[in-house]
Amino acid sequence: MTTLADTVEALTRRVQALEDELAIHRLIVSYGLAVDAGDAEAASETFDVDGVYDVAVGTMRGRGAVAAMVRGAKHQSMVGRCAHQIGPAVVDVHGDTATAVGYSRVYLATDGTVGLYRVSTNRWHLERRAGRWIVVRRITRLLGREDTLMPLAGS
Amino acid sequence: MTTLADTVEALTRRVQALEDELAIHRLIVSYGLAVDAGDAEAASETFDVDGVYDVAVGTMRGRGAVAAMVRGAKHQSMVGRCAHQIGPAVVDVHGDTATAVGYSRVYLATDGTVGLYRVSTNRWHLERRAGRWIVVRRITRLLGREDTLMPLAGS
Amino acid sequence: MTTLADTVEALTRRVQALEDELAIHRLIVSYGLAVDAGDAEAASETFDVDGVYDVAVGTMRGRGAVAAMVRGAKHQSMVGRCAHQIGPAVVDVHGDTATAVGYSRVYLATDGTVGLYRVSTNRWHLERRAGRWIVVRRITRLLGREDTLMPLAGS
Repeated sequence: MTTLADTVEALTRRVQALEDELAIHRLIVSYGLAVDAGDAEAASETFDVDGVYDVAVGTMRGRGAVAAMVRGAKHQSMVGRCAHQIGPAVVDVHGDTATAVGYSRVYLATDGTVGLYRVSTNRWHLERRAGRWIVVRRITRLLGREDTLMPLAGS
Repeated sequence: MTTLADTVEALTRRVQALEDELAIHRLIVSYGLAVDAGDAEAASETFDVDGVYDVAVGTMRGRGAVAAMVRGAKHQSMVGRCAHQIGPAVVDVHGDTATAVGYSRVYLATDGTVGLYRVSTNRWHLERRAGRWIVVRRITRLLGREDTLMPLAGS
Repeated sequence: MTTLADTVEALTRRVQALEDELAIHRLIVSYGLAVDAGDAEAASETFDVDGVYDVAVGTMRGRGAVAAMVRGAKHQSMVGRCAHQIGPAVVDVHGDTATAVGYSRVYLATDGTVGLYRVSTNRWHLERRAGRWIVVRRITRLLGREDTLMPLAGS
């Protein structure tokens, strides 16, 4: 027989799953907002201390490497002119680990004209640490390359 | 007087509504990921067996027709170069049926340059079948045509 | 000791927070669907009666001003050819007030070709009124201008 306590326990698990899904969407989107604002600390803190960002331009290992990229001359020259827009993505949570698979686009304004700069496929591997979701590995590949489908595989 | 059991029952309905909304977002987004990966089975299974995909290029009736389009030479020539990005959309659930209204965009990489290929308005009609949401009809129209607003009507 | 009633009360607050977040996403997205359909009433009703829409082209004060823009010749000439796509955004709820920070893009079809017309940063300030979320102030800035980052500040 299902008691009211059992029902509430099952409901608690369902609410947790919904919170996890929304938290992960928020986390991956907030990376884009942070880099566009030039905020190296906020951007790098969406990653685990040892998190890996494996992207077309090279692989960044650890928060320090992500922060250095944001603080670098190339990125800083784009702040105010770039928009890193993330999603749509599909999030899949398994206990304290999760994956998200989806797209990202970068827009760039140059001489008053805005254009599409990059479109990429992405796979994020996430873990829950002390109740907070964090990216342990993000794999990003440009559209139209040999390895474009790699982040989508297994989705 | 509201008993604790009543409160839990009301809460269960609210949690179900949240789960439905997120499941539908996930479903419509996953169609794009599947076609971009060239996965005819996964793409067609977002539709009901008799589901209809009424799109500018023609109307596909049933999963077989959707799968055939994905397996077709035209689509296969774009796999790895195309990104079908779906949303933002507004989901409206009524019991075991739902609609979603929103945008889709297709990006295409050609000779190393990525561009916007199509922007469309969409209306998805969905049904819950054995606890799983499924598309029974998707109506998609290109921007800037006589029938562009048709999928938005009633939204 | 935590009673079952306490647990249910805590769960109710978590469900409310999830509903708020999804309702706000739906509201800000629905503005775009409404203006694209040329529906001045639906678009203006996403704002409070005295709501402010502070956007690059000028500041609209009150629902009447938003509705007048939608009914205006310039906007009406774009209906059926424009798509106002909103998000991704990050929503932050505090009781009966909330903010959302994120991107919007406008696409425009001209002579059968669709292009990116505008990319903007946005901050929405929202309030819950009689159980319904409403925009009290939306600040929108174009990418690549001096004030682009202003809506992102504090995010």
